[in-house]
Amino acid sequence: MIKPLEWKDDRIVVLDQRELPHREVYLNVFNQHQMAGAINSLAIRGAPLLGLAGAWGLFLAVHKVDDEDRETFFKELFATRDFLIATRPTAINLAASIDKAIAPVVTKMKAKVPELKQLIYDEIRKMEEEEKQNCQKIGEIGSKILKDGAKVLTHCNTGMLATGGIGTALAILYTAKEQGKDFSVIVDETRPLLQGARLTAWELMKHDIMPTVITDSTAAWAMKSGLVDTIIVGADRIASNGDFANKIGTYNLAIVAKEHKIPFYVAAPISTIDMNITSGEEITIEQRPPDEVRQFMGRLVTTRNVLAWAPAFDITPVNYVTGIITEKGIVEKPTLAKIKKMVF
Amino acid sequence: MIKPLEWKDDRIVVLDQRELPHREVYLNVFNQHQMAGAINSLAIRGAPLLGLAGAWGLFLAVHKVDDEDRETFFKELFATRDFLIATRPTAINLAASIDKAIAPVVTKMKAKVPELKQLIYDEIRKMEEEEKQNCQKIGEIGSKILKDGAKVLTHCNTGMLATGGIGTALAILYTAKEQGKDFSVIVDETRPLLQGARLTAWELMKHDIMPTVITDSTAAWAMKSGLVDTIIVGADRIASNGDFANKIGTYNLAIVAKEHKIPFYVAAPISTIDMNITSGEEITIEQRPPDEVRQFMGRLVTTRNVLAWAPAFDITPVNYVTGIITEKGIVEKPTLAKIKKMVF
Repeated sequence: MIKPLEWKDDRIVVLDQRELPHREVYLNVFNQHQMAGAINSLAIRGAPLLGLAGAWGLFLAVHKVDDEDRETFFKELFATRDFLIATRPTAINLAASIDKAIAPVVTKMKAKVPELKQLIYDEIRKMEEEEKQNCQKIGEIGSKILKDGAKVLTHCNTGMLATGGIGTALAILYTAKEQGKDFSVIVDETRPLLQGARLTAWELMKHDIMPTVITDSTAAWAMKSGLVDTIIVGADRIASNGDFANKIGTYNLAIVAKEHKIPFYVAAPISTIDMNITSGEEITIEQRPPDEVRQFMGRLVTTRNVLAWAPAFDITPVNYVTGIITEKGIVEKPTLAKIKKMVF
Repeated sequence: MIKPLEWKDDRIVVLDQRELPHREVYLNVFNQHQMAGAINSLAIRGAPLLGLAGAWGLFLAVHKVDDEDRETFFKELFATRDFLIATRPTAINLAASIDKAIAPVVTKMKAKVPELKQLIYDEIRKMEEEEKQNCQKIGEIGSKILKDGAKVLTHCNTGMLATGGIGTALAILYTAKEQGKDFSVIVDETRPLLQGARLTAWELMKHDIMPTVITDSTAAWAMKSGLVDTIIVGADRIASNGDFANKIGTYNLAIVAKEHKIPFYVAAPISTIDMNITSGEEITIEQRPPDEVRQFMGRLVTTRNVLAWAPAFDITPVNYVTGIITEKGIVEKPTLAKIKKMVF
């Protein structure tokens, strides 16, 4: 099992996803600043994994504070919270997990520093365990939509590299394979940072699933050619009405799926659903540096000074969504009422 | 003016488009085998330019044949015809231009070899001139669809690098600029071979038009964000009913344009229309080597032995097409009857 992020005594060991699939390089992350760097540079990515990374970043900031120094402990705690949340604005999991890690401390403000540290540590370990179980459940529940012989298409990376478990959309494939189902998988390469070609292809092949990689704009032609009957993607944030943010290109894919009458599923843990926003319009879309489009791994692929536009995500309106698959079940044709019922 | 292909005494000098935008390298092409290599490796590309390249390739094969050796002349002529047409199957221009260059010879079979050579040479020069004029006319006619302040999106490369003149879809932009119109241009990077990012961005900037490059799957989000009000693409082959083949990703773009109610135009010379086929289903789609998807400008971007699917083109059904712009006018909502009327 791939471990994209692991606590080791005094540091977090991070699999540097920028180097995949060519090299498996691990980074030692000793403090919140290094963690912010790892998050911002996309050494760590994937909405659920970002949640754990943020929570561990918070812990790194406070675990070395002197056991007698309550003032510094709380100062570090809240300053680091804001600092880490600001690294990437779109995925809800980052902010949500950090606040979840802080929550036990807030209800026990008078405890001593060592106990407060332990509370945070225990909470993060609990979150890791829950995350693993949620991935398993998403896999089990989601695998029901895959018939034997299914022809799946997916976008970006939503597997072990994106979560603390076996994944979200990819969990469904791993589970279906365990069940002995036969299926094919097409993977969008997912420009600009090629999470599909670099990460998903690598991860699936490590688990004996052979995908076929295509360029993103080949998806429509693959559908027209009869190579796709199910689309499953992940989500970085789902609004209470079912609109959702995901890796740029997802909205494109959803439109094309609808045109070919191919079911389009979103697989994500409940924690990805933001009940505080009424629609996708309230989601902030992170803009990435234009060089991510102009370059690949330092190599310029266009004219140096040309303009480029690099939104990291797009918003897919709920009317394109066949169903949302979570650890609590599948919401078909999502509505606010149905989502509320599942979440609460 | 960029010269992608030029006759020089005993050779064709070809701008090697694989090296753009980083280096302007010229290749000397002395015979039909080198020309086939240049076509197949995409040193030369673009449907109209392929036509000229094919015709010159034919001339290269016969112009050094001994003036007394009729047998070798005709043997070379017809063998080279078949050989060159087979290099790329989708664009009609290649076969059409080669046959056009042969046509005067076929009606004067008894002429002496030097005269036959001259007939072919003159015919190619005539085609070059016509091509230039057609591009100008497409620019003039097409520029009428662009209002001041237009927000254009285009795919692949359809400019000077793709034709013997100022282009097809890009001719419209060059002409609109000359007319003093103000407009913005978004260029799809056009994976896998990045003709948009590498060629179109370079060529537009050379002519003082600053485009914004996006990844292909960002197009839908650009439309949703109000950055696009007109789409113009080229074509490699247009069936008599208006279905057309163009660079992979065009079909995707057409679906997304329809969903956003954005007009979608195809700009191409009449010679791109294949009246011998009744629909796009009869067009052969060239499959390219999977490494074109696995690599990014020569650099492996996925796992070496993963499967990849690399159709060079897709077919867009006519119902997605707002209009076809040719040197003879614009056919709005194309039908067989309307296209026939324009062509004949």
